[in-house]
Amino acid sequence: MTALAGRKREVRAAVLEARQRGERVGLVPTMGALHAGHVSLIRTAREENAFVVVSIFVNPTQFGPGEDFERYPRPLGDDLEICRQEGVDLVFAPTPEEMYPEGFATTVHVAGLTAKMCGAARRGHFDGVATVVAKLFGIVAPDAAYFGEKDAQQLAVIRRMAADLDLAPEIRACPLVRDADGLATSSRNRYLAPEERARALVLSRALAEARQALADGERDASRLARSVRRRIEEADGVALEYVAVADPDTLEDIQRVGRQVLVAVAATVGATRLIDNILVRNLGS
Amino acid sequence: MTALAGRKREVRAAVLEARQRGERVGLVPTMGALHAGHVSLIRTAREENAFVVVSIFVNPTQFGPGEDFERYPRPLGDDLEICRQEGVDLVFAPTPEEMYPEGFATTVHVAGLTAKMCGAARRGHFDGVATVVAKLFGIVAPDAAYFGEKDAQQLAVIRRMAADLDLAPEIRACPLVRDADGLATSSRNRYLAPEERARALVLSRALAEARQALADGERDASRLARSVRRRIEEADGVALEYVAVADPDTLEDIQRVGRQVLVAVAATVGATRLIDNILVRNLGS
Repeated sequence: MTALAGRKREVRAAVLEARQRGERVGLVPTMGALHAGHVSLIRTAREENAFVVVSIFVNPTQFGPGEDFERYPRPLGDDLEICRQEGVDLVFAPTPEEMYPEGFATTVHVAGLTAKMCGAARRGHFDGVATVVAKLFGIVAPDAAYFGEKDAQQLAVIRRMAADLDLAPEIRACPLVRDADGLATSSRNRYLAPEERARALVLSRALAEARQALADGERDASRLARSVRRRIEEADGVALEYVAVADPDTLEDIQRVGRQVLVAVAATVGATRLIDNILVRNLGS
Repeated sequence: MTALAGRKREVRAAVLEARQRGERVGLVPTMGALHAGHVSLIRTAREENAFVVVSIFVNPTQFGPGEDFERYPRPLGDDLEICRQEGVDLVFAPTPEEMYPEGFATTVHVAGLTAKMCGAARRGHFDGVATVVAKLFGIVAPDAAYFGEKDAQQLAVIRRMAADLDLAPEIRACPLVRDADGLATSSRNRYLAPEERARALVLSRALAEARQALADGERDASRLARSVRRRIEEADGVALEYVAVADPDTLEDIQRVGRQVLVAVAATVGATRLIDNILVRNLGS
């Protein structure tokens, strides 16, 4: 049985009951339009918790002016069906008014980490993310919360924020999920026309080449970045925003690749902004 | 038995044990140099909770450049003795490094409320307050937290922050406590030479007159503010910073006094910055 709650107090009551049954509580925060990446988060949460909450909230404060807040997909019926199939206990789908009632005035800001990569182009985006995640942690008070490595910068920001504010939930990261053609799963892939989707594959291909180069012993970060950049810039109809070769935790640019590395890209295909990355940990030297 | 903890994990373990005994947990956040105002908070917490935590932390991030962070009194032995006498269960006295380890990057900001009154003169002060209180709530996870109405703006900021971030603790406010001569109790009163203390009494006298004027039916906020301002400005050796006549929850300036009103002042006596206020709720019309 999957319950649906729109109110914070309903969530608190349901979680309290779960706690009184001695159940561990896992939270999967989403903006809905659930895809295979979300399903992998839900399944991991399901394995690790007796009570699984999925939040579905297209958070207005993490969209900038001119971004796709209005047209962001909201297929709530489909999402609920997926949650039902995956054995989610509670779906929390609040309205913006429930989350941001009149007089709301608080922002959680993570300095440094949020200024680069996606944060450079999307001013205020990560303030919106950090604030809404802090709120969801406050409402659900989960033991663990599940985020995708697809959103590598978001993950780093949330880890930092949770540690800095001494928030209780354990932050669990799950690997990026790709469709059969290699495209990283994303709710925004729905925006892509077939020919745009074909063009977008250059992102995953360029990153796959970077992964291969790392496997072949490449350790020079700028050479790695340059080859990814060149590969994407050569493609038709793809406007590259950035290539970052960085430490996955601090997001600081690196010059020489050590034991772990994040190679992340953002690009626009048609009107659709896409991100993708590879994350390598425990690289041999 | 009053336990002393310097580490967050010690606090978490002690609170977990209390919870497992089914005890309600109350938190009194302080910067130490405990006085009668703090004692009233502790006693209220003691009445309402089986397990009482007092935090003592002179929070560097809420002091501005040139403020009194270095010389702020830190009589830890005396403070612990007071906590012992008052039956406090746990004193949490962390180091700055425990609270702000290397890499710390997160700020909780409450807009609007923090820009006026003390916030106008003390830039960033309330960011420091909101952030450290959010952290203390994360570390202790209390059922209720106790703050003095003496710090009226701080109280409004914390209420706003706790509501906005859906933090679980109930925010409890306790009345301002005055010494026999009328001076509002404050850790900073220790800075006052005897003749400065005598001069500082104009603050509580001016506010007592405002309270009387309200009782006598005065409802014109600017007239009320003017008479408090004049009274303080006439006094020798007292530099008035502001007089505010505001709604105690939103801190918005009011023109005509309704059912509730905060009259707050800040002034410097010698080198010591003092604040004081009167808070009237349920005023007849």
